[in-house]
Amino acid sequence: MSADERESGPACPLPVASSATIRLAHGGGGRLMHDLLQDIIWPAFANPAAETDCDSATLCLPPGRQAFTTDSFVVRPTFFPGGDIGKLAVCGTVNDLAMVGARPLYLSVGFILEEGWPVDDLRRVVASMRAAADAAQVQIVTGDTKVVDHGKGDGIYVNTSGVGVLEHDLTLTPAALQPGDVIIVSGDVGRHGMAVMSAREGLAFEQALESDCAALAAPVQALLAAGCTPRVMRDCTRGGLATALIEIARTGGARLRIEGRAVPVTAAVRGACELLGMDPLYVANEGCFCVVLPPDQAERALTVLRRDPACARAVHIGEVLETQTRGQLWYRNELGVDRILDWLSGEQLPRIC
Amino acid sequence: MSADERESGPACPLPVASSATIRLAHGGGGRLMHDLLQDIIWPAFANPAAETDCDSATLCLPPGRQAFTTDSFVVRPTFFPGGDIGKLAVCGTVNDLAMVGARPLYLSVGFILEEGWPVDDLRRVVASMRAAADAAQVQIVTGDTKVVDHGKGDGIYVNTSGVGVLEHDLTLTPAALQPGDVIIVSGDVGRHGMAVMSAREGLAFEQALESDCAALAAPVQALLAAGCTPRVMRDCTRGGLATALIEIARTGGARLRIEGRAVPVTAAVRGACELLGMDPLYVANEGCFCVVLPPDQAERALTVLRRDPACARAVHIGEVLETQTRGQLWYRNELGVDRILDWLSGEQLPRIC
Repeated sequence: MSADERESGPACPLPVASSATIRLAHGGGGRLMHDLLQDIIWPAFANPAAETDCDSATLCLPPGRQAFTTDSFVVRPTFFPGGDIGKLAVCGTVNDLAMVGARPLYLSVGFILEEGWPVDDLRRVVASMRAAADAAQVQIVTGDTKVVDHGKGDGIYVNTSGVGVLEHDLTLTPAALQPGDVIIVSGDVGRHGMAVMSAREGLAFEQALESDCAALAAPVQALLAAGCTPRVMRDCTRGGLATALIEIARTGGARLRIEGRAVPVTAAVRGACELLGMDPLYVANEGCFCVVLPPDQAERALTVLRRDPACARAVHIGEVLETQTRGQLWYRNELGVDRILDWLSGEQLPRIC
Repeated sequence: MSADERESGPACPLPVASSATIRLAHGGGGRLMHDLLQDIIWPAFANPAAETDCDSATLCLPPGRQAFTTDSFVVRPTFFPGGDIGKLAVCGTVNDLAMVGARPLYLSVGFILEEGWPVDDLRRVVASMRAAADAAQVQIVTGDTKVVDHGKGDGIYVNTSGVGVLEHDLTLTPAALQPGDVIIVSGDVGRHGMAVMSAREGLAFEQALESDCAALAAPVQALLAAGCTPRVMRDCTRGGLATALIEIARTGGARLRIEGRAVPVTAAVRGACELLGMDPLYVANEGCFCVVLPPDQAERALTVLRRDPACARAVHIGEVLETQTRGQLWYRNELGVDRILDWLSGEQLPRIC
């Protein structure tokens, strides 16, 4: 168009509701994108703090310290037993905030959609995000939507960033570890990874596998409210429990040891792992964390955690043997033999979150 | 692996520096991912507030109101005249914060990398982000990296979210428009879109086309410091100047009018647009915004804005004719004929940012 032949684009485009699939124009900033936002995204995320007429949300955070984090989600498939990419994106970022002891307050959401993806799937994801946000008591206040050409994405990728407030004076860091500290894991391990794996490969196991995907802010807040003073917490996502503890050990310059038989693993996960030759200690979780704290707080921490349904299987699995040393995670197997666990090179399952 | 045959993965994997391309394992949470972070990402973004040993950054924001925003970037190609996806991602989010009058402080960055993409390109993008962040006086404090299979991405997608502080009491909203308010555009329009287009299509024009990609926080802060009280500001990204003003008009229920001959367009952009049949008013910018303010502030605003190199061509292009009415953007052409401008259905150029 020249400036003097300017038109308003194709006459009367179909509203988004009648477009069954995502089109490039849904990310173009024009009428179709406005329809997409107005029909699907704004209604689902409506809340008092949300921006609709500008590109930033205005917050009024209490004074003090805040936590800020980001995570992108590329899980395949989009929908899996126990969750979907939307629930995962909300819980994952809530959990990153929770692991520094923050109370999560606000989330942003960025969608990268692939041309040709069903609009109804977007509705499902958005509804799932809203439900997960409500459950975790966080508000989704700002967002962005981009569309990429067919063959340059995989249906949907989601980024969530989060802001929370620190209502305590603790500095949670692996550097704070002390000899004798106890290691607690909040639940059984490996469920998320094996549920995604079974959905991806179309495997049916005797016992159903469901992701453990859950927000962990409430049990962490309960822990702090009960006067526990964790040295460090870590959610056991990519790379599983072993990777989380190895990171803590290396960063903190500490020798940790866990007891193999103490680590909870469901029969379903154990069976699937054995069949596929995988190690549940390295399989991703999305609703499970490890916490290290002083030994005299272990019982109190377990009592408090177990009150939360997501942490009902919380258990003491090991301890800090030595600090100011070379960071290592030791593993005691059923025969009482100790061995060092190391990072895997990559991960057993790509695109798990 | 069974629990009793656990190994530490392939012995002594190559450090990331010697891997020429991104591999799925770079996103797996294990050793290769740690190497990628340690070799490339943490050194580039190092700053006092950055998290390296946990998944959230701890901030200490001044009391008052804050702004929070997010944007994903999927521009194709990754590198274009005048910028790249990294500079764009920093400037874009800085500008979203600037448009509500916030002083941008902290950014997060989320990478979605495609298997097989050159690691050296990641180095370039990361260095460009650091330079853009330094120039805009923001700190990149938290991040995340995911890798998707070859054929499920397009080299790199970047999400940046941002937190800033509001150091004024204004509420910038289209609802604040008053009849007689003036409309200023901060620079010439259409450069980003046409530069990306020329790079994408391998077009060579007589005059070089460079993106206007730039951070706008400094000129906006200068405007506020000079006592200007904008009603509303909007950066002219996807959909260009026309789409930004149509959104303002519709949201604010106001009739705006701009003068076609007042809108600055470089000869290079004009020539390229004529050749390709595009309208510069609808072509994306990444370093250009429009601001509406009371008429008695127009001269002061222009003087202040023009001191900033990114806004040297700032000019008065129109006014608010009427409020509390049906929101419309009118355009007066060279012959003095007025016409309504409407949203395009999508956008003339997909994947421009």
